[in-house]
Amino acid sequence: MLSKNNIKYIQSLQHKKVRDAELAFVAEGPKTVVELLHTGVFACRSLYALESWVSKLEPNQLKMVQPYLEVIKDFELEKISSYTSANEVVAIFSQQEVTSPLSAENTVTLVLDDIRDPGNLGTIIRTADWFGIPQIICSNHTVERYNPKVVQSTMASLGRVNVHYTSLIPWLKSEIAVPKFAATLHGKPVAMIEGREAAILIIGNESNGISMEVLAEADEQITIPAFGGAESLNAAVSAAILLYTVRNKRN
Amino acid sequence: MLSKNNIKYIQSLQHKKVRDAELAFVAEGPKTVVELLHTGVFACRSLYALESWVSKLEPNQLKMVQPYLEVIKDFELEKISSYTSANEVVAIFSQQEVTSPLSAENTVTLVLDDIRDPGNLGTIIRTADWFGIPQIICSNHTVERYNPKVVQSTMASLGRVNVHYTSLIPWLKSEIAVPKFAATLHGKPVAMIEGREAAILIIGNESNGISMEVLAEADEQITIPAFGGAESLNAAVSAAILLYTVRNKRN
Repeated sequence: MLSKNNIKYIQSLQHKKVRDAELAFVAEGPKTVVELLHTGVFACRSLYALESWVSKLEPNQLKMVQPYLEVIKDFELEKISSYTSANEVVAIFSQQEVTSPLSAENTVTLVLDDIRDPGNLGTIIRTADWFGIPQIICSNHTVERYNPKVVQSTMASLGRVNVHYTSLIPWLKSEIAVPKFAATLHGKPVAMIEGREAAILIIGNESNGISMEVLAEADEQITIPAFGGAESLNAAVSAAILLYTVRNKRN
Repeated sequence: MLSKNNIKYIQSLQHKKVRDAELAFVAEGPKTVVELLHTGVFACRSLYALESWVSKLEPNQLKMVQPYLEVIKDFELEKISSYTSANEVVAIFSQQEVTSPLSAENTVTLVLDDIRDPGNLGTIIRTADWFGIPQIICSNHTVERYNPKVVQSTMASLGRVNVHYTSLIPWLKSEIAVPKFAATLHGKPVAMIEGREAAILIIGNESNGISMEVLAEADEQITIPAFGGAESLNAAVSAAILLYTVRNKRN
């Protein structure tokens, strides 16, 4: 039985201020929760699940879940879930300790200049994971990675990509050795980044694109060739095409 | 001054049943509304806007808007908007007359097998528009293109791409001459579609992928090469990479 205080606490983690203070975040749904436990990047603090879900677990999964598990009823799950149709299991994890970003040398790094839509950030993290990108550098105004909608749309990739928030200008200036490509509407065709082993790829805000100051740090502007009437592409779509292209190695 | 009945009517268009019966849909926000008027594909029935927005219009825009315009107050806009922060203008358009799909010969056609997320469909329509894809064929269980969230995320591309709903199997069987590629997790590298002038590209449902019956109609399965840990890609991201690839012509 979940106490009123517990319910209030879990609900309060929907707010960034509380997540920041508690250094915690919430993940929901069997797939996301099990995979986050599996990657082991985020320490689990507690896990609330329906009996019907627990009874379906394989022995090794049950062993992983057991230390944090509290079995709850449907009506309790509904209270702590942020979905309209609650999804079997809700877990609270500790946030990762904030460390220095990894060096961008000899690798591909994605840079996000003020991505605001949580669905976009989540999709970008998931796509970066697919393409084996070790790190995403986000401007300080980019949406928080522990936002519940971000966590949901990463589909558990959150534990496999290092997402780092910083002031972009000094970081870009510090990475002298790595060529920097900014996705804009009036650059050279993106094909120029094909197969590069070291590159920094910069994606801008959904409405305003890349800020002038950040753009000034780029070595080249690159553009996804257009054939129709749309004025622009969705930020997650642009990021995906850049990542596909940079991983597209020709003989 | 908006009548109570008018407010109720506009609100009721949030429901598919009402949209179907009225053959109408709602678009919101200056950019979407002005561009939809501009493409001329959907007949405007009425347009409700703030004085502050109308006063900013250029003469030719004002002329376009005038026949449908009713100036309303902030508190009225809030009542008819589906956004939490209402966006200056709301318009009601007629749906397009349903016609037969265009032939898929000598062109690239996108096929969607039960895409359920409105944001995904909207993003796919916008991306198809960017790449100059004339037509998207949707299974009958794909989310409706006049869903407000679809309309919003197309960013006005809705008027430039023919979105057709039909039973996929007979349609695929009828297009004998065009090679059909299904995006799956275990196919040949997507590079095989580079630069093709005629192709049917099939994208599956967010959770279940492409149904067995539809898959049986494909000539080839193609896969976006993976380098990391993510199990799958977002449907709109997959569609975008396929469209970029098919438009990527090499010398």
